[in-house]
Order: sequence, then C-alpha cells, then structure tokens
Amino acid sequence: MAMRTLLATLLATGAAATAAAQDPAPLVGFGATGTAAERQAEQQVDASLGQFDLDGTLRRLTSAPNQVGSPHDKQNADDIASALRSWGWEVKIEPVRVLVAYPTTQKLALAAGDHYAADFTEPAVHGDPDTARRDGVLPGMESYSPDGNVDAPLVFVNEGLAKDYDDLERLGESVKGKVVLVKSSGAGRWVKPRLAQQHGAVGVVIYSDPEADGFPKGDVYPAGAWRTDRTLQRGTLGIDSVLDEKGAKALQAAHHTDDLSIPVVTIGYGDAAHFLRALGGKAVPLRWQGGLPLTYHVGGDATVHLEVASPWAWQTLYNVIGTLRGSTWPDEWVVRGVHHDAWVYGAWDPLAGTTALLAEAEALGKLAARGIRPKRTLVFASWDGEELGILGSKAWAERHAGELAKHAVFYLNNDTTGRGFLAAGGDPSLAALVDGVAADLRDPETDASVQARRLAKRAVDAAAKGRDASGAIVPERLGTGSDYLPFAHRFGVPALHVRYGYDRTGDDESVPVYHSLYDTYTHYQRFGDPGLAYVRLLAQTNARLVLRTANADVLPWRYTPFADALGKDIDRLQAGAETAHREAQRHNALVAADAYRLAAVAYRQLKPPTAVDEDWQPLALGALRAAQQALLAAAHAYDGAAAAAGDLPPAKAAKVNAALRRFATAWLQPAGLPRRPWYRHLLQAPGRKEGEDVAPLPAIGDAIDAKDWAQARQEITTTTDATRKATGILVEATRLL
Amino acid sequence: MAMRTLLATLLATGAAATAAAQDPAPLVGFGATGTAAERQAEQQVDASLGQFDLDGTLRRLTSAPNQVGSPHDKQNADDIASALRSWGWEVKIEPVRVLVAYPTTQKLALAAGDHYAADFTEPAVHGDPDTARRDGVLPGMESYSPDGNVDAPLVFVNEGLAKDYDDLERLGESVKGKVVLVKSSGAGRWVKPRLAQQHGAVGVVIYSDPEADGFPKGDVYPAGAWRTDRTLQRGTLGIDSVLDEKGAKALQAAHHTDDLSIPVVTIGYGDAAHFLRALGGKAVPLRWQGGLPLTYHVGGDATVHLEVASPWAWQTLYNVIGTLRGSTWPDEWVVRGVHHDAWVYGAWDPLAGTTALLAEAEALGKLAARGIRPKRTLVFASWDGEELGILGSKAWAERHAGELAKHAVFYLNNDTTGRGFLAAGGDPSLAALVDGVAADLRDPETDASVQARRLAKRAVDAAAKGRDASGAIVPERLGTGSDYLPFAHRFGVPALHVRYGYDRTGDDESVPVYHSLYDTYTHYQRFGDPGLAYVRLLAQTNARLVLRTANADVLPWRYTPFADALGKDIDRLQAGAETAHREAQRHNALVAADAYRLAAVAYRQLKPPTAVDEDWQPLALGALRAAQQALLAAAHAYDGAAAAAGDLPPAKAAKVNAALRRFATAWLQPAGLPRRPWYRHLLQAPGRKEGEDVAPLPAIGDAIDAKDWAQARQEITTTTDATRKATGILVEATRLL
Repeated sequence: MAMRTLLATLLATGAAATAAAQDPAPLVGFGATGTAAERQAEQQVDASLGQFDLDGTLRRLTSAPNQVGSPHDKQNADDIASALRSWGWEVKIEPVRVLVAYPTTQKLALAAGDHYAADFTEPAVHGDPDTARRDGVLPGMESYSPDGNVDAPLVFVNEGLAKDYDDLERLGESVKGKVVLVKSSGAGRWVKPRLAQQHGAVGVVIYSDPEADGFPKGDVYPAGAWRTDRTLQRGTLGIDSVLDEKGAKALQAAHHTDDLSIPVVTIGYGDAAHFLRALGGKAVPLRWQGGLPLTYHVGGDATVHLEVASPWAWQTLYNVIGTLRGSTWPDEWVVRGVHHDAWVYGAWDPLAGTTALLAEAEALGKLAARGIRPKRTLVFASWDGEELGILGSKAWAERHAGELAKHAVFYLNNDTTGRGFLAAGGDPSLAALVDGVAADLRDPETDASVQARRLAKRAVDAAAKGRDASGAIVPERLGTGSDYLPFAHRFGVPALHVRYGYDRTGDDESVPVYHSLYDTYTHYQRFGDPGLAYVRLLAQTNARLVLRTANADVLPWRYTPFADALGKDIDRLQAGAETAHREAQRHNALVAADAYRLAAVAYRQLKPPTAVDEDWQPLALGALRAAQQALLAAAHAYDGAAAAAGDLPPAKAAKVNAALRRFATAWLQPAGLPRRPWYRHLLQAPGRKEGEDVAPLPAIGDAIDAKDWAQARQEITTTTDATRKATGILVEATRLL
Repeated sequence: MAMRTLLATLLATGAAATAAAQDPAPLVGFGATGTAAERQAEQQVDASLGQFDLDGTLRRLTSAPNQVGSPHDKQNADDIASALRSWGWEVKIEPVRVLVAYPTTQKLALAAGDHYAADFTEPAVHGDPDTARRDGVLPGMESYSPDGNVDAPLVFVNEGLAKDYDDLERLGESVKGKVVLVKSSGAGRWVKPRLAQQHGAVGVVIYSDPEADGFPKGDVYPAGAWRTDRTLQRGTLGIDSVLDEKGAKALQAAHHTDDLSIPVVTIGYGDAAHFLRALGGKAVPLRWQGGLPLTYHVGGDATVHLEVASPWAWQTLYNVIGTLRGSTWPDEWVVRGVHHDAWVYGAWDPLAGTTALLAEAEALGKLAARGIRPKRTLVFASWDGEELGILGSKAWAERHAGELAKHAVFYLNNDTTGRGFLAAGGDPSLAALVDGVAADLRDPETDASVQARRLAKRAVDAAAKGRDASGAIVPERLGTGSDYLPFAHRFGVPALHVRYGYDRTGDDESVPVYHSLYDTYTHYQRFGDPGLAYVRLLAQTNARLVLRTANADVLPWRYTPFADALGKDIDRLQAGAETAHREAQRHNALVAADAYRLAAVAYRQLKPPTAVDEDWQPLALGALRAAQQALLAAAHAYDGAAAAAGDLPPAKAAKVNAALRRFATAWLQPAGLPRRPWYRHLLQAPGRKEGEDVAPLPAIGDAIDAKDWAQARQEITTTTDATRKATGILVEATRLL
C-alpha cells in the first residue's frame, strides 16, 4: 500500500542523511570509484560552506538599492567579480546596453471630492533602518509604463483577466475611455494593461489586495512578515524589444512599450481602499470581492487624474561571468546563475540566492586550488537586469548562442529563496539527481533529511485532499519568471530552478514583501531565513547539483520520469482540449435554453452571457502516444543499463554523454515554434493563458488555442517525429553503455 | 444527451405554464374527471389569492415585536384565529405553558485597558421606522443561557467546532478556565457552548463574522440588505426539557439549560473586532481568519468580564389550529403549518410565510363556502414558540399523537421565505407532486415556469462545476430547523418544507438579517420580496400542494424517487464510513512516519497531531442493498400502475390510500431509535455531526459513529426488515389498483 511505502521511504531517507558520507552505494552517473571521490569532494565543500560569512555577504549585497542603473548594482557586480577572481575563477564582466524607463512623474488622484492622491513611496518602519532611506530608492511603479496624462472615470475590474471582462459585460458596464483598477493577483502584471487597453481603457492602476499577502495572512511588517497597507510593488511591463537596439529606439521616441500605449501605476491597498470607497456603481460579483473592509463596487461615480512620465534612457547591465576550467571535459559547461539586480534592496529577491552562489564559488575555488578541479567546466553567472524582463541572461545567452549549443550540459538557477521545503522545478530527467542530493542533506528545522521533509509534505498535502501520495517527485517543467528562461526554452539545456520556501503549499506565500522597499536584510533575517541556515543549505544543494553533474562519468539523467512526464502532458493536453470543447457546447446549450437568464439572482443584475465559438476537431494523438510509449520502453532500458554500468572507461562515457546531449536538443525546432519563434522547445514554453506558468507541448497547444486544426495536426506530427528521434538516440545511448 | 434533455424540458416546461389550466393531462393522483375539477378549483383559488391584501397583512403581523410572551405575539394569534373563523374555518387556540429565559443582565467588557464593553442593542437605521423602537425589543442574546458571572481570559476558537479545538491543541493552547469567542457559522448555536464547556471553557461569546453575511456579500443595511457591524442575532440554546414540566422546574431552580452551565452571549462584528484586536497571542491558522480588517489571533493577553442573568419564567404559547372538514374523507388530514412567533418583528422569519398561509386559508375557505370543499380535512396551524426550540408544534403533535397516527396524511411547512427559486425539501415520494405544481406556476422575475427556473438553476450550477445536470429533482430529506420536525421524524407523516429564495446557491444567502431587529417589513419589501410577488406565488404553490393532496383519488406519491433516494443514502453511508476509516488509517500512518512534524510550516507553530482511534469493522450491507433493489422494482411497478389507473372507484382508492399510509409509517420504530428514542424514523433524523442538517439512515449511522459494530449490524437488519415490509405493502398497493 502507498502509505506503507511512504512510511518506509521516510524512515529510510531520514536515516540515510546521517550516513550519507559513508554510504557506499554509487551516485547517479558515477561508478564506485567516482562516487568515493565525489563524496570526499562534497565533504570538503561542506566544510568550506560552514566557514563562509553568509551574514556579512548578504548584509553587504543588500546595503543599498540595487536596481539597474544604481551605483550599488554596479558595485555588487564589481565586488562579485573581485571575489570570484580571489577564489581562483577567471572572471569577465560583460556589459549590455538596455533601454530603461523608470517613471519620474506619477500622479493618481480623485478629480473631485477630497482630491485624495495616492502615495508612491513607502514609509520607514521601526526596527528596520534600511527602510528609512530615500535617495536612490525607486517609487512603487511599473517600469516601461507608457507616458500618459488622463482624466477619466475609475472602474474596478477585479484581476483584470478575460473572465473579469466577461463579468463586466454581464453587468452592462464597460472600461472604454476609463481608468481600470485591478488586483495584482491572478496573472503577470504585463498581461493586465494589455487586456485593459484591448477593452478600450485609457489607464491602469494595479494594487495588491490584502487577501493575497496582507493582514489576512498574518501580522504585517514590522510586527510580522506580511504586506502593510503602504507596501508597494515595482515591476516590469515588458519587454523583449529593449534588447533590440532599433526597436528600442522607436520605443524611446514614442515613450511606449511595444503595443502598449496607456499609462500604468501601482499602489498599496491603503490607497486602493480609498479609491474603492469612492467608486460607487453596482456591487461587484461575489468572486471579485477582496480582503478590504468594504463592499467592492464597479464604479461610475469617481473620476481620477492619472499621470505618468519617464525619461526613456539607456543604462548598462553588468553580467558577471566566472569560469573554472574543467580538468577532464573542459568543453562541457555546467552553467549556474542567479541575478544580482533587485527592485530595491532585494534580500529575498535575489540576493540570498547570490549569497549562496558566492559561498559555492569560494568552496569550489578552494577545492580546485587544492587540486580537486571539477571534471567539466563551471560557468558561474551573476546576471543583471532580470527584474526588467530577464534582460541580462537573455542577452548573454544570445551573444554566446554558438558556445552554448556546443558546450552547455546543464543550467542551475536560483532566485528568491526562503526556508522550509526544497522546491526544484525543471527537466524531468533530473529527478534522480535531485532526489539523491535531497536525501543526503539535513534540514535545519526538523533535523530530518531534505528528501524526507518534501516527501512528508507531499503526503500530508495529499491527505488533506483525502488522497494517498503516490509515485516519485518529478520536477515540474519551468515556465517564465527567472533566468532559466533562455536556457530551458530557447537552447534546450536541461535546466533546474531550485529554492527553499513554504510557498506553493496552497495557503502560504513566503514573499509578502515581493518587489517592495521592505525586502531588506532585516526582514530576511527575521522572516526569510533566520540565521541563514537555509541559505547555507541552498549552497550545499547547489554545490552538490553542480559537482555531481560536473564530475559524473555519465551525465546523471534518467529518462523514465521524462517519458512519464510526456505521457502526462499528452493526457493533459487532450483532456484540456476536450474539456474546453465540452464546456463550450454545454455553455451554448444553456444559452439556447435561456438557462442563464432563468438561473440569475435578480439583485446581482447580471445579463445572460452570449454563445461562444464551439469550432472543434478531435485530435488524433494515437501516433504521439505510441511514440511516447516507445520512448518509455527505451527509457526503462536506458535507466536500467545506466544504473548497472559501474565505472566506465572515459572514451565510452564520452560517447554516451554525447548521445544524451543530443537527446536534450532533439526537442528543439531551429526555426522556433510556429506562433512564437523565439521559443524553440516542443515540450515546454512559458504559459500563454492568463495565470498559466508553463505551457506543455506548446506548439500543439498554441494551434489548438487558435483553433487552427490543420496546424495542430502538423505539430502533433512534428512532436511525434521528435519523440521518435529522441527515442532512437536513447536506444543508441543504451547500446553504447 | 443530458443537455438535449434539459433543453427540451426547459422549453416544454416554460411553455406549459401558460397552458396549465387548459392542460388535459391528468394530475398525479387524479383521473381525468378529478383533474378537471381540481384545475377549476385551483383557478378559483388563484383568483382569490390575487385579491388578498398581502401587504396589509404582512404590515399588521410585523407591526410590533413578536417573541413568545410579547403582547403582539398573542395579538397575532387572536387575529389569525378571528380571520380563519371569518373565512369559515373551525378554530381553536391551544395554549402551552413553557419555561422561558430571556437575559435581563448581559455584560461583556475588557477587564483592563479601555474597558470596552459590548452593546447588546441595535441602533435605528434611516428609512426603517420600526428599527427605532426600544420597548419590548429583546436585546441580542441567547435564550436559555445559564446565568453566570466570570472574569477570565478571552480566546478565539474560530467556529468552535471539534476540528477547531484540534487545531487549538496543535497550537499548544487551551480554553480551560477561559471565555471563548466563536463565529456563528458552521453549526447550530446550541452545539458551540456545549463543546466549549466540554473543553473546560467558563463562558462563550458568539458573533457573526462579516465573511458570512456582512459587507463582503454586499452593501449593508440600509444601503443594501446585508448585516451591519451592529446587527445582532438572537437564538435558543435548547431545548426539549422545557416541555417537561418536572425537568423544566429543575432547570428553573438552577438557571441552567440541561447539561449546559456556562453563560453565553452574542455580539455584532463591530464589537467582535474590538475584542479580537485586544486578543494578542499567536496568529490563528489560516482557515480561521475571517472577514474583519485585522490579523486574527488566538488570545492570551486580554481578560474579559462576562455576566448573564435571566428570570426563568413561565410563559404561554398560542398555537392557532384551524380546521376545514373534508367532504369525502374527513378522517384524513392534510396539515399545513407556519409559526407566528419571531425574535423581533420577523418579516422574513416567519411572517411572510404566515401571510401566505392566511391568503391560502381565505381562498380555501371561500371555495368551501361556494360548495367546493376539499375531499380530505385541512388542518391549518399557526405555531408559536418555534424560535425557542420548535416548542409549539412539538407540544401540539405530542398532545395529538393518537389523532396524528390515525388521520395525518401530509404535512406542509413554510418558514423563512424570499424570492427566486423554489426550494422544496422533504419526503422523496413527493417529487412528482412538487414537479407538477412547479410546472404550472409562473415565476414573477422571469415569466418562465417555476419548474423551468429551478431546472435552469440546477443546470447552470452543474455547469459551473464542469458537469451536466442529470436526473430528476428529488426533495432532500428534512433535518432540523422548523416545525416539520415532529411530523417528519417522530410521526412518519410525509412532509414537505417549501420556500422561495436565492440561498443554498453556494454564494448567496438571502437572510442577512437573520434573527435581528432589522428583519422588518421595510427590509422585506426592499430586499426580501419587493411587491410580495413571491409571497403570492408561495401561497399558490402551497394551495396547490394542499389541494392536490386533499382532493387526489389516490395520494399523489411516487416511489421510484423514494427507492432511488434510499439507494443513494446507502451509498453515502458506506462511502462515509469507509472514507472515515481510510482517513484514520492514513492519518495514523502519517503520525507514525512523523510526517506532520516534517510537513509543518515553522512560523505557524503547530505541533503534530496525535494518532486517532482506527477501530473498524466492515459493514455487511448486501441484504439491505438487495432489499432496496426489490423496493425499487416494486416502486417502478407501482408508479407505472398508478399512472395508468385513471378514475378509480372511491372504495378501491381508499384501500390503496390505506396501504400507502402504511408504507409511510413502515419506517417508524415505535420505541424510537436506539440512541435517540424521541426520533422514530429509520431513514431520517436531524444531523448529529457538526454542521450536518440531516442524518440519513440514522439508526445505523449513530451506531457507526459510536463504533458499536454489533449494534450497527443489528440496525442494518432492522432497516432491511423495514424495507422488506414496506416493499410488501407497495406490492399490495399495486395489486389493489
């Protein structure tokens, strides 16, 4: 029974952590000889990490604002470069020129009545001296907001998503010629202004409703960790085009961002409450109501003045790239990155992760100095400009595209991190590597292994839903949101994004200071990771992931989880498409029967919805499923053979590794995906639908969403072919073992 | 396909309503001759109802406070009696002496700090003159609260249910020697003080959190319908024993209610916010957080003074019983009831229903005066003392137990009612009767039939969950909560509870003034049922249900839905028991593996839970299922034969009717159910678990809950025997047709 298995696994992995260093079982990708050497190296790394001054490092990195263009962002880049150099790394700072728009004028005020005006600054809080600083601190704002100056009625549209505009239409209201007020939850901030503009809005105000991360979640800062009524966000509204010099110059001339031409500001929930009280009009649909102590209304009574102006100026990003040349396979690169720019101080996001990276770099540098060099080359990157739109890592990856294709075997990313449970998203082939590392490490809060803790969490979460947890933990594919983006989605480098946190548990969110002034050293030490035990654990986790990949005889990848994940993605794609069709049919049947009008609650005053497009063709997925089954069989065979391989002669291992690397890129389309050519991976891309982080099987999914059935059939064929090709490569790799 | 069926049904029932009076199809229980006469009678009733002064009646009934013991409650009883008499009914007022405890002293104040004290009165609101009255208005209070006077720390325990105390223990906190503050949601008010007392609390404060029916649901009164921060509740903490003179005298001496000995008060959410702010201590588990603009804490810092004292005095209830003797079967009674007592004015609860009852009584009286007398005797009851614990109807039913057993064929109840969708709970054998009535009546908001509207609502609700609606609408069994209680659960009279409302739709609750001063005529005319179109529709609905039962040749009951409902109840019982067992096993496996500790979020400070009792024996339900299947076959046969029967000779019909009445009481255990002897019905009883309204198969379910496996087996046998006996009766009835 599943529970017995869990119990056994928990007890086994709990015990294993103490005995890890003595464990004679070979590591994934290593024979017995390699395992012993690797375990010794890891012990030395642990010793180094135990000495590293995490606290001093985090304090220095977060001692001044770190946005792109700030003196301290440059200072950090220089300091990181010097530190890496001092630890024996070859270092280059690679600057990138980018167009930046930080608003210098922002106004949002009621045009009549009390003329209440929003405040775009955050007050100092007791006990956190960094919050008292004013110079060099960006206000709450949306970078790349188009310039604008409008007076218009304010309307509330919940999260500003498509379904909210549907509801608004049912209420008989429109945003045409109006400024919309929306919550920041539900989808990325770049989605909302574009949707608002498409519906005819002339301006956008985004605020964080307390229901998401304010007082309903816990005491607010400084009493507790959570968002105060004056905690603001900063963010970016774009943007790929700033990397393209010509496009950027056009934007600069227009003071517009791509297709977006209406001004956008962000305010706190204290200010939002004042505007919401002034709104008037109909009461909102129940699901729109938020956590503020008032009945939310759609608006109609209040007009606001909204004004945004920015100098659209060129700034320099500083990517710091450190290299530690591999002893055996120097042409295979293990790339490791964290960004160093932040919206203000950025202790949570991202400098705790940068602190871990520095600790690892010192430990690995020292190890190399003692002659224990990694077999593959390590490339450690401290990216800049992530907050403006993943600009630094994208620029670097494009610039080094040829080298990446030739050399990169693995990309390991960190960004925001806290304490609690290990979360590792990424390529499903990396599951065994992550499990092995997690089983070896001890969790500071519980003294159990990291693996035991995440297994326990999964079992308890499942039990809360009345289910047993079953099967292995497999990394979930990466979407958008951090510097793994170009590696995973454009270059097909097996990538992993690792952090510790309580978030993604359904009801806890560990970053209540997201993109605010209060993301400080003090906040992090009080609520993020008191004592930085998890920053140290993150460094240990990263160092093992890096070293085990860098030193493995055969790359530590297993394909049964990969093939299973593909099977699940096909299931989800089919179920999603069929459900959408069935729901469209059902909806239209209800419209035809007048059921929505008859089922309406009179005082909610909702007009019945109209019929939707139910164009549909069934998807012939048989060949793709058969290919996935063949891949699964090949994966079983490979995984079994690889586990049994023992110490391999280097020449033999090199051939297998070459095949495995070809497997990873077998999924790339050189010309890109049909509807988003920058992205190339047939199995994964950032989510396109609102609130969807990752799109599995994006080429097929995009065609389905566009109801382009001929193209969907074509992309099913393309994906099937790629699956067959990858299967052939895996069969070859198995034969080579 | 289900959607096609729905569409067809909606269109058909929508159209049918216009043609109802001309529809030549026989009504359920009638032949062609009887149908024509019945339709004519109903047309005359509709005409009368169209004339009745609903507005004046509701205004008079709600013109002063109507609690038990108030002059106006007596006045209403007298006026109702006079009115019935004037319409040709034989009328008796049947008084009942009951013990009543309304607090005259209530104090709740912070013992230190600002000494803030709760206010147990509700302020007048603009535009509703009734709310300005003070004399004769009860304060917010819990009737039958034990007297008490304590100074103790205040702790917040969410809804005060078992799982909340489990959470509290995981927080390392206790209510021992403390006053608990709990939300009013989640379970009946009588549950919470008893649970608190069992856990060692010395007092209880109940408040309505705004999340339930305050500003998050809509604008508060008088701007909108919803609960203000000073809207209070009144309610009862008991109580059967006040009906038993000897027991009541003991309670009176002790100023205690049964086993309950700690004082209980109820406050508004404005006051609750003040106390919650003073609480201090740990932040609550996330699911405890409510809708107030603060982070809820468990408490520990604040001590309160709580004081309650009541004169425990004898009062008189006035049940008004009107009788209209039947022309053909005077010894068969159709009983119809609504209570007339209220906590204050009681426009929603219950006097809109009483208004409908009066309109019906006039129409039926006039009809009789014109020589169109019902074939069976009508007994119309205006109950008193419902709010104190269903006292009036229970007393009357006990007093007339012998007659009820001999004469009663049907009980039809109303209580709170509003506008929107028809909701009819009750015996599943009544589904066809309700469907027929609903198909004939036109809904005032949509101009569709009442049936079309409830079908549409079911389909739209199902679609929102991604499902098709399928199968017929079958009344759900009755639980507790109104005057149907003794009829349905003790005397086995097929009962129906009917109302109109938007509530039970998941996100709307139509009675935001529940048990408050603001349940007034003005509120009802603005938000309950503007223009009283639904009070008129309710009267039409009731009159048809009453007349079609009173005049039917063969009682209008169909048994396929009844047998299906029993099948579903067996499924639910088995699934519930097995799920509980599986969850206990899973929980204990997680406890054994230390998984709860490992899965905990550190800053929430929850200790791991302990193991639970997993004693379990599988239930042998095979014989009961076989009996249910046999009943289903007999039901199919009966329903088919009854539908085909046409006009029956009266003597033959009488024999069938006698059998059907024996079927209804075949489920009664004369000595009562093993663990609650006052209740006698094997298929239904009030829910026993927190928040559960009705307990299906209660004899078996109670034994399972007590883990008394021998008794569970015994009760399965008893229920199987009863099912076989009822099946035999139905087979006999079919033969008689």
